[in-house]
Amino acid sequence: MTFVSIREVAPRDGLQNEDPVPTEAKVALIDALSRTGVRRIEAVSFVHPKAIPQMADADEVWATAWHNPGVRYSALIPNGRGAQRAIAAGFAEIEVVVSASDTHNRRNLNRSTEESLDDIAGLIPLVHESGATLEVIVATSFGCPFEGDIDPDRVAAIVARVRADGADRIAFGDTTGMATPRRVRDLLSSVRPDLLHFHDTRGTGLANILTALDLGVTEFDASAGGLGGCPYAPGASGNVATEEVVHMLHDMGIDTGIDLDRLIEAAELAEKVVGRRLTSGVLRAGPRTRLV
Amino acid sequence: MTFVSIREVAPRDGLQNEDPVPTEAKVALIDALSRTGVRRIEAVSFVHPKAIPQMADADEVWATAWHNPGVRYSALIPNGRGAQRAIAAGFAEIEVVVSASDTHNRRNLNRSTEESLDDIAGLIPLVHESGATLEVIVATSFGCPFEGDIDPDRVAAIVARVRADGADRIAFGDTTGMATPRRVRDLLSSVRPDLLHFHDTRGTGLANILTALDLGVTEFDASAGGLGGCPYAPGASGNVATEEVVHMLHDMGIDTGIDLDRLIEAAELAEKVVGRRLTSGVLRAGPRTRLV
Repeated sequence: MTFVSIREVAPRDGLQNEDPVPTEAKVALIDALSRTGVRRIEAVSFVHPKAIPQMADADEVWATAWHNPGVRYSALIPNGRGAQRAIAAGFAEIEVVVSASDTHNRRNLNRSTEESLDDIAGLIPLVHESGATLEVIVATSFGCPFEGDIDPDRVAAIVARVRADGADRIAFGDTTGMATPRRVRDLLSSVRPDLLHFHDTRGTGLANILTALDLGVTEFDASAGGLGGCPYAPGASGNVATEEVVHMLHDMGIDTGIDLDRLIEAAELAEKVVGRRLTSGVLRAGPRTRLV
Repeated sequence: MTFVSIREVAPRDGLQNEDPVPTEAKVALIDALSRTGVRRIEAVSFVHPKAIPQMADADEVWATAWHNPGVRYSALIPNGRGAQRAIAAGFAEIEVVVSASDTHNRRNLNRSTEESLDDIAGLIPLVHESGATLEVIVATSFGCPFEGDIDPDRVAAIVARVRADGADRIAFGDTTGMATPRRVRDLLSSVRPDLLHFHDTRGTGLANILTALDLGVTEFDASAGGLGGCPYAPGASGNVATEEVVHMLHDMGIDTGIDLDRLIEAAELAEKVVGRRLTSGVLRAGPRTRLV
């Protein structure tokens, strides 16, 4: 393995789980990340402003941010209305979430997993007509804070359904940091995603990525500074920090296209934007090559 | 692999790198850890009270703490005077540190690595005469914050020297959190320790342990709550948190003898004792099996 593709999710997944910040701060963060060499950025979500006020200015953020031609930008949507907004804004990559856990899906989306899968089946032609692709993110793939372990067969059945319905890509979300090396092996021996999204709630973030690399996965979400979390997961900390992932990968001789120094600068900006100390180790201590 | 041996180092390595705490708090922490099922505890160090005031009451702490017959307790010493105190206190397991990095050794011990190795050669017969064993901890084995990468051959030469001099056990210390999965593989392909001591400064703590397990290492230091750090390492965070290590190992079906709930209670006590929020994920969020 010589290259791993990172999708930077701080502007959307990170900021959506923080107190709202000004439009210009969001634009500045996207622009800083667009200068790091990262090839993919989850930029905004098109959700109802009453449900998620953090993303109420998604159209303005996206209209103002630099669109680096070397970067693939994506948007998350919850439904057809969101898909229409994302398409109108010009996104070529669109994501939608469904939870493997029915309880989590009901809490998060106010409907059953089955109902969400039906909704997604209806979304796919709409997205494809515009020339965009749809990625389905299967949340709670490694466990649910309400239901506990999720049977890999249940995740596999969801994957089979959405692939049959025409989904372009599949991601597994470790929504509340319940993934461990053992659970990664268990699930991935049943069914393979295109991309993995880990949190670092219980210290296993990089150990999970190491395990997934060993199993041949080459695409991961990560969030500058570890920004983000999950409002439905008490005690859950943020996404795995992009600079920690990149630091480990580069040390292993695996390229990401990312300039680690610029990425750390972007993580410093993320920290300033949200106004709280982020726990990312590489942000705090610098890379191992930074000597005294 | 069915069992991994954890040495709990919060009472010594943890508290030595925090502001001094009262004797009774140290005793309470040792006693709480002695009730977790952990088989080994680094209890105190016998160092000059002016150099390290945190351990000035080591004799009283050790005389007061519960000596659980199911636990092996150890003490760290810097020199012959410390060894005499540890032996007089009845310790059967004694540890001494030498840095693979000459610069780090001079900053930490005010002498060259070579001079420290000569000192250790003189200590070994003294320790053995008392019936105790001596473990040599090779600090900065995975990198030095002043010198950078440390050649595995240098570590191997130190190991060969101290083994020839009669050292009973060898540990490799990742003193400032510069170990990564790649560096663990690199070093351990040259020379094997009995035990590994990782910090989680850059997020790689559990990924390093996972890598070492894959290479057959079965003994690790860890610190409840991730207590500790290194005063010579700017930005360095604490040791790998025992509850994060145990949480991952138990999930893999590897026993440690430790009751995770009791361990988390001990980590909560460690947090109370030092009066600052510790960053351990499993301490904050609980184990993945703790549902809402």
